[in-house]
Amino acid sequence: MSEPTIDTGDDPGFERVAIVGLGLMGGSLAAALRGRCRTVIGVARRPATVEEALARGFVDEATCDLALGVRDADVVILATPVRVILRLLSEIGPLLAPGCLLMDIGSTKTQIVAAMADLPPHVEPLGGHPMCGKERAGLAAAEATLYRGATFVLTPLPRTSHPALARGKSVVRSVGARPLLLDAARHDRLVATISHMPYLVACALVATAMGEGAEDPSLWQLAAGGFRDTSRLAASDPTMMLDILLTNHKAVLRSVESFQANLANLAAMLRQMDEGNLRRTLEAYAERRRELWMTR
Amino acid sequence: MSEPTIDTGDDPGFERVAIVGLGLMGGSLAAALRGRCRTVIGVARRPATVEEALARGFVDEATCDLALGVRDADVVILATPVRVILRLLSEIGPLLAPGCLLMDIGSTKTQIVAAMADLPPHVEPLGGHPMCGKERAGLAAAEATLYRGATFVLTPLPRTSHPALARGKSVVRSVGARPLLLDAARHDRLVATISHMPYLVACALVATAMGEGAEDPSLWQLAAGGFRDTSRLAASDPTMMLDILLTNHKAVLRSVESFQANLANLAAMLRQMDEGNLRRTLEAYAERRRELWMTR
Repeated sequence: MSEPTIDTGDDPGFERVAIVGLGLMGGSLAAALRGRCRTVIGVARRPATVEEALARGFVDEATCDLALGVRDADVVILATPVRVILRLLSEIGPLLAPGCLLMDIGSTKTQIVAAMADLPPHVEPLGGHPMCGKERAGLAAAEATLYRGATFVLTPLPRTSHPALARGKSVVRSVGARPLLLDAARHDRLVATISHMPYLVACALVATAMGEGAEDPSLWQLAAGGFRDTSRLAASDPTMMLDILLTNHKAVLRSVESFQANLANLAAMLRQMDEGNLRRTLEAYAERRRELWMTR
Repeated sequence: MSEPTIDTGDDPGFERVAIVGLGLMGGSLAAALRGRCRTVIGVARRPATVEEALARGFVDEATCDLALGVRDADVVILATPVRVILRLLSEIGPLLAPGCLLMDIGSTKTQIVAAMADLPPHVEPLGGHPMCGKERAGLAAAEATLYRGATFVLTPLPRTSHPALARGKSVVRSVGARPLLLDAARHDRLVATISHMPYLVACALVATAMGEGAEDPSLWQLAAGGFRDTSRLAASDPTMMLDILLTNHKAVLRSVESFQANLANLAAMLRQMDEGNLRRTLEAYAERRRELWMTR
């Protein structure tokens, strides 16, 4: 696969983009898109968010009125928590111009793509999920560089036209990300293992430390970089994560089971003081983990 | 508790310090101590390590000869993997000068402190464990600032004299760390939860991803910051970690059990789609995790 290229904006294939939801992800997307098309319009629920997005220069225009914001847009991107996206998909169709590309950046795709299939025929739907983010939620944490270098999954529907998909890829490249086409169910299975299950693991780590720390508060004085990083995901926005878990629960539960079996296997080797097997196993994991990030 | 102060070296209470083992931890300790006492002597197994430590200016003197290196030192610090420390403790006593403070920086303390109890009476033993480190092992990764700001556990024995403990604290403060006195068994129980169990969890995460990635290699394209951080500990030096696990296996296994129960509890809430409880639980963990590191 060739290296991603960042479109210069000369021929982006889109001129008026509306972003619905100006939190961390939507705000960062707006900021990254601004200047790469004629107009970026932000749509937010709260007037204070509209003001902040304008004040920080993340959008050309902003409004709390969904119908007004998406009217005449040739690309609309839903950037709210997953279950808000599902609700928006049931009502947004009639508000959109003919041929409008309707994307989303929700973290689970099966239910969203199923809901997109029911959109009126004048809309071009395309699921999306950028593999980036950070713990802090909200527009205050947004930054134009968030998407740069990230893999950005696109999950087209059978009804998604070739030009609409090309336009979606152009949006992705214009914010510096790499489009990766995946089937929605396959996407959900993979992110369950690489992202959603690890979130639950981080939560269980915090829970275990809280239990021990309640008995002996010295525990917290011993918390260093290892625990900080391993537990970092537990600080993620619970509202966003709850939506993700509940809309991908089967794949997440399957991945948790697989993880529990792997941990039980390691514990069994330790219980048996099986040094030979434990060493070979730990070395294989260390090698794989180093391969993954030493070269990046 | 007041902020740690870094001793200026005016009255460190020690003049000649020998560090046995010049890997990441020993090399960094030597570098941090150099200039804060009259002489830092490095002792390493391999001549190449001796040369490198001298070339990088981490030590005043260095040798492959243990007896030569520790002779006349008023502080000797063992900085090898735990089971090498245990072997050294069985042979080093007769090599040490009367009144010598013999410390170690091994990651588990119960077995080490038990072995220290058998040292000849002219030696002053003191267990230690600095709560810092990084994945890369070896002298190449060492840096003088590694200990700065870290909690440095000291586990005195009943036979450790007050002046010897004071000298140990002075060593700790002179590298910018904060001494924390703990009983060895209590230390081992706490680090099992905050450090050793999280290492096994990180390994099980890599194992689970490797299993899924073998079926669908696209998985690795979706690995982002969340997986990188949660799995980071799996890249730790397997030899060091194996020593830690095998010398603290009971506490580690107990902590793994507690972790598995917490994860099973989260999975049960998700299986039942118990949104109310799940939200309250995830919010409590997010809040605790944010308290821990937002203010640092």
